[in-house]
Order: sequence, then C-alpha cells, then structure tokens
Amino acid sequence: MAAAKRFMVEELRREREASSLNISELTTFVDGGEMFSEKRRGTYPKVIEDPVFSMANSYFMSREESFDDSMKKSVRYVQRKKELALDPFESRVFKDAITEDLPIALHESMFIPTLQGQGTPEQQEKWLSLAKDYKIIGAYAQTELGHGTYLRGLETIATYDPSRQEFVLDSPTLTATKWWPGSLGHTATHTVVVARLIIKGVDRGPHSFIVQLRSLEDHTPLPGIEVGDIGPKYGYFGMDNGFLRMDKIRIPRDQMLMKYSKVLPDGTFVKPPVAKAAYGTMVGIRCGIVIYSGRGLARAVTIATRYSVVRRQGESSTGGPEVQVMDYQTQQHKLLPLIATAYALISTGQFMLRMYMQIQSEIMEGNFSSLPELHATSSGLKAFCSFAAAQGIELCRLACGGHGYSLASGIPHIFVQYAPAMTYEGENTVLYLQTARYLNKLYSQKLPSSGLADNVAYLASNYTLQKRSPVRTAQQFLDPHVLLEAYRQRARRMVAIAVTRFENGKRSGLSQSDAWSSSTCDWITASNAHCHYVVLKSFYSAVQSSDLTGSNRAMMDALCALYGVFGITKYSGEFMTDGYMSSEQVALARDQLYSLLSTVRKEAVPLVDAFDFPDETLNSALGRYDGDVYTHLYKWAQRAPRNKKKVHDVYEKYLKGMLKQTKAKL
Amino acid sequence: MAAAKRFMVEELRREREASSLNISELTTFVDGGEMFSEKRRGTYPKVIEDPVFSMANSYFMSREESFDDSMKKSVRYVQRKKELALDPFESRVFKDAITEDLPIALHESMFIPTLQGQGTPEQQEKWLSLAKDYKIIGAYAQTELGHGTYLRGLETIATYDPSRQEFVLDSPTLTATKWWPGSLGHTATHTVVVARLIIKGVDRGPHSFIVQLRSLEDHTPLPGIEVGDIGPKYGYFGMDNGFLRMDKIRIPRDQMLMKYSKVLPDGTFVKPPVAKAAYGTMVGIRCGIVIYSGRGLARAVTIATRYSVVRRQGESSTGGPEVQVMDYQTQQHKLLPLIATAYALISTGQFMLRMYMQIQSEIMEGNFSSLPELHATSSGLKAFCSFAAAQGIELCRLACGGHGYSLASGIPHIFVQYAPAMTYEGENTVLYLQTARYLNKLYSQKLPSSGLADNVAYLASNYTLQKRSPVRTAQQFLDPHVLLEAYRQRARRMVAIAVTRFENGKRSGLSQSDAWSSSTCDWITASNAHCHYVVLKSFYSAVQSSDLTGSNRAMMDALCALYGVFGITKYSGEFMTDGYMSSEQVALARDQLYSLLSTVRKEAVPLVDAFDFPDETLNSALGRYDGDVYTHLYKWAQRAPRNKKKVHDVYEKYLKGMLKQTKAKL
Repeated sequence: MAAAKRFMVEELRREREASSLNISELTTFVDGGEMFSEKRRGTYPKVIEDPVFSMANSYFMSREESFDDSMKKSVRYVQRKKELALDPFESRVFKDAITEDLPIALHESMFIPTLQGQGTPEQQEKWLSLAKDYKIIGAYAQTELGHGTYLRGLETIATYDPSRQEFVLDSPTLTATKWWPGSLGHTATHTVVVARLIIKGVDRGPHSFIVQLRSLEDHTPLPGIEVGDIGPKYGYFGMDNGFLRMDKIRIPRDQMLMKYSKVLPDGTFVKPPVAKAAYGTMVGIRCGIVIYSGRGLARAVTIATRYSVVRRQGESSTGGPEVQVMDYQTQQHKLLPLIATAYALISTGQFMLRMYMQIQSEIMEGNFSSLPELHATSSGLKAFCSFAAAQGIELCRLACGGHGYSLASGIPHIFVQYAPAMTYEGENTVLYLQTARYLNKLYSQKLPSSGLADNVAYLASNYTLQKRSPVRTAQQFLDPHVLLEAYRQRARRMVAIAVTRFENGKRSGLSQSDAWSSSTCDWITASNAHCHYVVLKSFYSAVQSSDLTGSNRAMMDALCALYGVFGITKYSGEFMTDGYMSSEQVALARDQLYSLLSTVRKEAVPLVDAFDFPDETLNSALGRYDGDVYTHLYKWAQRAPRNKKKVHDVYEKYLKGMLKQTKAKL
Repeated sequence: MAAAKRFMVEELRREREASSLNISELTTFVDGGEMFSEKRRGTYPKVIEDPVFSMANSYFMSREESFDDSMKKSVRYVQRKKELALDPFESRVFKDAITEDLPIALHESMFIPTLQGQGTPEQQEKWLSLAKDYKIIGAYAQTELGHGTYLRGLETIATYDPSRQEFVLDSPTLTATKWWPGSLGHTATHTVVVARLIIKGVDRGPHSFIVQLRSLEDHTPLPGIEVGDIGPKYGYFGMDNGFLRMDKIRIPRDQMLMKYSKVLPDGTFVKPPVAKAAYGTMVGIRCGIVIYSGRGLARAVTIATRYSVVRRQGESSTGGPEVQVMDYQTQQHKLLPLIATAYALISTGQFMLRMYMQIQSEIMEGNFSSLPELHATSSGLKAFCSFAAAQGIELCRLACGGHGYSLASGIPHIFVQYAPAMTYEGENTVLYLQTARYLNKLYSQKLPSSGLADNVAYLASNYTLQKRSPVRTAQQFLDPHVLLEAYRQRARRMVAIAVTRFENGKRSGLSQSDAWSSSTCDWITASNAHCHYVVLKSFYSAVQSSDLTGSNRAMMDALCALYGVFGITKYSGEFMTDGYMSSEQVALARDQLYSLLSTVRKEAVPLVDAFDFPDETLNSALGRYDGDVYTHLYKWAQRAPRNKKKVHDVYEKYLKGMLKQTKAKL
C-alpha cells in the first residue's frame, strides 16, 4: 500500500528509505502465496471505498449504535458478495477488511459448516440452499448459562416422541438456558441447538438439532421460544450474543442432524460408525483461531511500532531532538519480540491450515486415523496462540504509553476482539490438558520415533537426551539446530516432570483421576513448552521452505532466532532444569537477545509495513502509515460526541447549582 | 457484611461454615486498624442506600449517559460531604464506596493538594477557600499531546512580562496541547497548568500556574482558551479527560505557585531553596497508586473466587454433581496466588502510606534528606504494584471463563479502571529505571549496611552473599528467613548483572549514557526483583507486627509463603543464577507451592470475604455474597437496552429486505 510520493513524517520516511528489505516479497510470505496477496489486494478496495463500511465513527458509537451499524454492514456484505460473485476465500478476505464483528458472521462460520459437516445429503439439500440464499439466518447454540467447555454437562434435552416422530426440545432449568451464541439474540431465524438426546428414557449424549426461532413473516419469536440478547460485554458491541430458552417445543425427526448418529422413526438409535466423528466443526473452529491469532497481534504491533518511531520522549545524549522511543532498548525489548511472535503465529497458522486441510480430506474419505493428532495439536495451539496474541496486544497497548488507552489508538478494540478467543471454543486450560493427555500417552507408550508424527518425535523412547547444552558463545544461538534442540529438551523435561508426578501419585495410592488432577499444573507447563516448540519449529520451517532471498531471508532468520532466544530468557528456569543449561549459557542467550534487538530494530518499520494493513482497516491515529499521529488524534477528538457544545448540558443540569451555591437539582 | 440467616447457595454456605478464620479480625488487618474499619462501616451505607449512587444500570449506559450520571453523583457527593461533615478520611471512603470515576475527583486529589503543596500562604488563602467551597473546580494540566513522563520536554510556555507583571501562557505547537488531564474537558473552571517559565529569554524549566478556563457566569470558555474532551477511552467513560490550548492568554504574577521558586515583580527569578522540593505532589500520587493497587485486585479476586466455588464444570470422579471449579489444581494455581498478592499489595500499601506520612512530616519541617529514598521506593513500587494489580485483574477475568467477558461479571470495569495506573503518573518502565539508578548508586558506592535503609541493606558491601541456598526440604520454604534471604540473593544478583553490563559498557568505550542505555533491560529485571523483595518483606512485616492470632495468623503465614514460593517458581531462572538454587530446590519450591494451594483452598472464600466489599459496590453478578449467580445474570440481561422490544428495529431497517429478498434499504 506504499506510495512513493505521499506525505510521510520524516521519522518514518528515514526508516523506510534505509531499509534493504523487499516488502512485497515479505507480504507474499505473510499472505501464504502470491495468489492470496493478489486476491487480497483486489478485494480490500471494495470495502475501503464503500462508505457503508467506513469505520471513521466507530469509536464514537454507543453499543446500540454499533449494533445498528454492524447489521447495516452485514446486509451490505451479503449484497456485495452476490454482486461481486465472491468465492469463499474472497468472502473471508472481504469480511477481514470490514474488520468489525458482523451479526451475520456465525451464520457463515458456524451454522453452514455444521449443516455441511453433520447433515445428511437430504438435510443439506433442504437447508443449505435456504441458508446460502440468506432466506434464513442461523446461529449455533451450544454453550449454556451453566455449561461451557464440558460438553457432557449440557442440560438442554431433546426427547424423541415416536408417536409423532418429533423431538421435544426443552430447557429444564435456568442453567440450561443457551447463553453466549453470537447472532442468537435478535438476528437469527434458526439455530443449531446442541442438546442431550433422550430416547425411551436413555440419555444418548449431546446431538445437534435445527430449531426455528423466529417467524419468517415478521421476526417475532415462535411460541415456546424465549430469545434475546445477553447484555453488554467487554467488546463485540455490534454482535447480539444471545440467550435461548425452549419450553417443550416440537420439531420433526428430520431436524436432528443425522450424518453420524441416527434416530429411526420407531426410536431406534443408530450409533455413529466412528466415535468423535462429529467433533469436526469444533476442531475446525479451533484451527481457525490458530490461523487468525497472528493477524490480531500483527495489527497491534504495527500500530505500536510505527508510533514508537514517531514518538519522541526523553533527552538525547547528543543534544539533538528528543529520543525516538523505539531507540530505547527497553522499548525494543517490548516490541521486537512481538513482531517476531506475530510472524511466528502467522507461520503456525499456515502450518495449522495445511494440517487441517489434509486431515479434513482424509476424513471426507472416511479415514479418521489422524483426528486425535489434529485434535491434540489444534487444542494446545489454540490455547498457546490465543494467549500469545491477546497478551501481546495488551503489551502493545502499554508500549504506546498513555495514548494506548485512548480508543483512537485502535488497540483496545483489537484486544477486546481477540481476548474472548482465550475462553471460547474450549477454555485454554482445558485445552492445554487435552494436549497433555496426548503427550502423556505418547511418552508413556515408549514408542520409537518412527512411530510418531514429526512434532512429537522428541518424545520417542529412542530419542537421545543431550545432558548439557553445547553452547559456548552467544553466536551459537543463531543456529536453528541449537535452538530447536533446546526447545525439544525443555519440552521433554517438562513432560517428564509431569509424568513423574502423575506416576508417583498413582504409586502413592491415588486413583488414576486424582493422580492426574494432582499433576495438572505440571501438565500445563509441559503442554505450553510443547506448543512453544511447535510454534518455533513452524516458524523456522516456513522460513526455510519459503522463496525468501537476500536481506529478507537474513532478517527472517534473525526473527526466528529472536523468537527463540527471547523464550529462553523468559523461561530460563525451565531450560536450566536438570542442568541442561547453565546460568552462564542463559547469560549468553541474553547477550544474543540484545544483539538481535539491535539488528531487528533497523527494519522494525518495514517488517510491520509488510503486514500490509491499510490505514482504513487499522483505524488507529497512532498506527497511521504516514505517521501524522498528533494531527489525527487532535482532529478525531474534535469530532467526539461530548464536544458538540462548548458548554455541556451537565453544566445546567448539575454543575451550575453547585458552583453558584444554589440548591443543586438531583 | 455477613448476616447469619440470609439466603446463600449451598456451595458458599459450606465453605463459610467450615472456616476456622475470624473474619472481622482479618478485615481489621486489611483496613489497617479497628478505627478505620469502623469509619468504613459507618460510611458505606450512606452511599449504598442513596439511590443517586446506585450502580444497578451502570453497565447499560452509553459513554454519554455515564458522564451525565457521574456528574450527578459528583454533585451529590459534594452535597452529602457537607451535610454529613465528612472528615478527609471519611470523604475518601465515601468516594471509594461510590466506586465510579467522578469528574470532580481531580479537584480533590490533584488541584487542592497542589495548591497546598506549592502555593504561598497568600495564594492558599485566596484559592483554597474558593476550591474547598466548590465555588471553583480545578484540574491539573501537565501531560501534553506529545509529552508525558519526561517533564522537561513540555512545550507549553509561560513568558513573564514585567511591564504588566503578568505571565503570558501559550501553546506554541500542536504537540504542546495539554492532553489527558481529568475534569479538564467540561467540568473544571480553573486548572493548574505546568509550563516552562521564560523570563527575559531564559528558560527556567517547568513551573505551575493557576489559569481560569471558563466563565463563572455561564461556563463558556474564556477568550484564548480552547478546551474540550479528548474523546472516548477504554474506560473512565464518566470522566472528561480533556485538552487545552492557550493562545497567549495573560494571568497576573501572583498566579504562579511560588512556595518554592519565585518571580519578583521586576522579573528576578529566585530559585527554590531545595531542588526537587516541588516533586511532592507527584510522589504523593504515586504513593497513592501503591496504596490502592491492592484494593483493585482484591475486588477482582473476590468475584473470581466466589464464582469458582459456585461454578461446577466437569465430571466428578466420585460420580456426584460436577466438580466445583475451585477444586481443580489449575484453578487454585490461578486464583490463590492472586489472593496472596492482594494481601501482599495491601500490606505494601500500608507500608508505603507510613513511609509517605513520615517523610512528608519531615519535609514540612524543611528536612528533605529522605526524599530520594521515598522517590526511589515509590517509583519502583508504583510500577510493580500497578502491573501486578492490572495483570492479576485480567487473570481473574480469564479464571471466570466466558462469563468474565460479560460486563455483568464486573471485572472488565475493574480492569479498565486500574489499567491506566500502569502508564499515568510516570510510565512504569521509566519509573523502574528511576529506582534502578538508586540501586546502582547504592551498590556502586559500596556502603556498609549501617549506612543503608532497611529495604536496601542487602546491597551493602559487607552483606555476605550465600553461595548456595541451604534448602533441603519443601518444608523449609515455610520459613520466612529462608524465603526473604532467597529474594535478597536474587535481587542482589540481578543488580550485580546490571551493574556489570553497565560497567563493561563504559570500559568498552561507551559514554556513561550509552552504557546505561545498553544495560536498561537488565536494570528492569533488577528493579523488578528488588520491588518483589520489598513487597514480600512488607507482607511478612505486616503479618508479624499484627495482632492476628490462631488460625488467622497461621493462614496469613501460609499466604506469605504462598506469595514467596509462587514467585520462586515463576522466576526460577533468576533464583538459579550463579547456582544459588538448583533445579532440585526449585522442584521443592514447586512441591511446597502445590501443598500450600491445598491449604489455602480451604479458606479461599473467607479470605476474600474479609476484604468486605458489599455487593452493591462490587456490582458483579458472579461475585455476589450469596452466590446466586445465574439468577442474577439472567435477570440483568433481561433489562439490557437491546431487549426492550422482542423484534429489534434492525429487522425492519435491514434484515427484512434481505430475508424476503426484496431490495435492502441501506
């Protein structure tokens, strides 16, 4: 999006002119290929140039205004999608460019995929065409007021009535109320409801049903349906996360999604051929969180990096103008590892996408053998990446000083958009522990490395454990083999510690389940260490298998190393376990860290420019490409609703009486 | 606030009945004495029972409605303060109970203290009575659009004109615009302005001036004054953080605050007798942040703890109802160290308050000798405590799972209220480095311990460095001497590492300032380690010097130990530096940590009950004393503005056309 002659503050111009990077090549790396870059560049202007999609006033809106605005944008999106005949990839890019939460989004990301993944061909034929034409809008109602990640605890029930060949859906308790589903409150006409299937008094566990919520005539809730919004949240003002109570409402038998489990007319229950086959939608969504986490952090770090170059604060030792904040080592230490993390998460997202696509196509052919690995990998990475992104975004906000707290910085909005990913679609702690069970199983089975997937091969019984790190100079930390080996060693040791506590628990007489419980904190550590290794490995693989050349390649190698050594200094105690690293070696890692900060500092601005976020979608006074920060902060504030009058109404209402010592009207 | 017979969910009743703690004794410990507890208990009902102060609808309000509401509450507060003849302590407690940000707050916390601290007796006589009668309302305008923590970079100028004995105040550039001061936008009639004093072309540095902003007749901005709101922020919706531009406006000579520096009628500049004497206000505010940080975290952890006991999730190994979330080791690991941290921060706040009061009274007597220590201690602790509180609040939110993201949880509101403390009144990194300069000076001077204040005595040249931690059993970590010694050792080693890099830098030919810059990351680590030690030490001192007895004393000892061992496991690499601790010893700390989690788990609810936040001020559906969480979440949502109509207006405006395939109106 760079243009040669456009206005730019001197600070940013200097950085860009001094750069030796080929930015468009880096952008292609970030996008995952030239074809994707092209589609993105073709799609974005269609959003940016459309006034309906403007975000210029979005930070001034009340929550209710946001909802109105988001609905308008949703309908406009659907209209444009048809007019422009966008393919699925372009549609996704189009929504990315809109940047805001659309109440229609769950229809496309959850409702339709669930129909596709769990519906029979007949069900798909009936419902998919209605859904794809937007004649109905669907939500996905799983989470309840009292039940989240633990699916088997759901209380909503669907009782089969063979006499009428209908299911009776009911919310028997207050805590059974469906709670949180996006678009459920006021948008959706239909929803998938996850309920425990009861046949002849037997509980068959959670299954999915299609339920109509509102009249297609006038949008009023149907009899027996109580539906509405769950009230204001931290963010997502434009989304109508909703609640749903059902009072013994009846739906025909063919509205249970029956691709896997089936209920025959007489009430005979047919189990799915493969257990867990229906987990597909959830796994897909988790993969999606991994895939997008990097983009969120990239947005925030683009803002903080540009602003830190423009912002001057503190006395220069040479007597010139004040110091650019980015020239402080402490600021580099805050932001440059986050630039590295953004690239690492984007690379991990690409790895996750490939893995998902491959295993998905296996599943389509009826081969479910890789599902456990996909499940374990996506669970841990969802937890690791969503936390890394959210925490990184908050650090970017802090790195902007006071102005980071203004909505004009754009970062609070990014944070509240990404933060829920830490709890939705599986709470992070629970997901880490799912990965931990997989790690425990692999480690305890003592398989040879040939029997293990690449990312977990270090858990093999024949994997040789280096007793001591061989590092003797800071320079050696630039070697990918050295770093990756260190991360493997750490992860293996953390797994071993957790296994030992688990096994000791059992030996001391605890039940299997209590022994597991008593080792869960250690398992979180192990799972985190494993995921950290997978992310570093994915980052190196992406760089090594890329077409990057020259300075670009050298800089990305430096970013990989920065990501690696930063982690060593942050988790030094874990790397020192069993004496694998000495404190002298950690000190060398720290030396290398500071050296890499200087290297990466020089290209910090081009590195975030390569993420290629147009100003309109970044929506940040601090993160502007031209760096004209203060003018735009000032202009933005002038437009704030509170400044409509020079003397605010609160003066007449309240202040005047107090100041003039007449009786205040309250 | 506990009442014996009130309704309470079974889960909470069981915890409270099983407790062996004396809660009211603990509350007195938290309050800092019986007298304070009594005043608090006397004051709170006057707020809670007054409908003007109700927070029942606060999460539903738009930002503009919040501002109106906060102004109403401000005026009501002033009215009640007079009627009830509240003393300064009671006034503070009264405002605590209101919980929300009042646009009048800066008048009392900044404007009046600045007049008192920097005004001459004549100035105080003139301005203080006006201010204390609320005939004027003041703000404190220091920070500028382009200038924050680095005071000497301020661009606003006050040029003395001896011919008219006036100062000419001017905002010469856009970046000189005052930006952020609370109450400045639409409330204040006057403000203290910090500007560079220019006399006969000589820049005398930043000084404070009283400037009238708005007419006392009709509140319109005076000629030459451009003033307004800086626009919406992450939180503080009810506060009118403002901007101010001055176009060569004139004020009389006696509106420069002249307790220290003076300008005589002919323009002669008289330097203050003691440099930095005017820093008093700022230091006071920083101390205040330390003092209050514990309360913020205590609020959040009260909510998360109660909810974690009520909330059930996951299969019970004994086949009973689902597991209480608090019974998971991972949940204990999230929340119990935060309960300990809240108590530690509250104890540190009490230490800070005593230190501030003592040194303040020395300063009143003209003795400034302890100011550098107060400055260094309050800077580092402000950074440490504000970060610990904000990070802890966010962790509490995550520990509440999905519902933590609802405004009804109350935690997002607490976070956005406390988060700015990390950047305002001195950005945390800058403040850590101020403490670091003090640590460097003490360490490098090689003073004997007799020449050092208690908290820094470990930096003395005659302090004997234990080479190895003597710990051989997990049990030994319960010994305060062992823990405190470990924290001293770690802090001293971190200081030594930073000093070494600084000295090596100088030896390698870097300038003093560049050598310092190249060691700042290490200094942040050192400063953090030092503050961590001071907090642990303050916590132990508070417990040991208290009247706590029996189970209360035993539990507080356990909380101190929990705080200490948690820090060792979190920063294990630092404790392992130079082999002070081995990885086996860190493993013992981890064993002790898990053991303490079990101990503290039993009293988790009473420990947060002792903070004694009435439900009305906690304003959280999840944190209710009675635990009736789901009923209140549900009821609250029903009242949300978006649920006023069963069919929302967006249907007619946008959705209908799309669903019915008629042309959408956009």
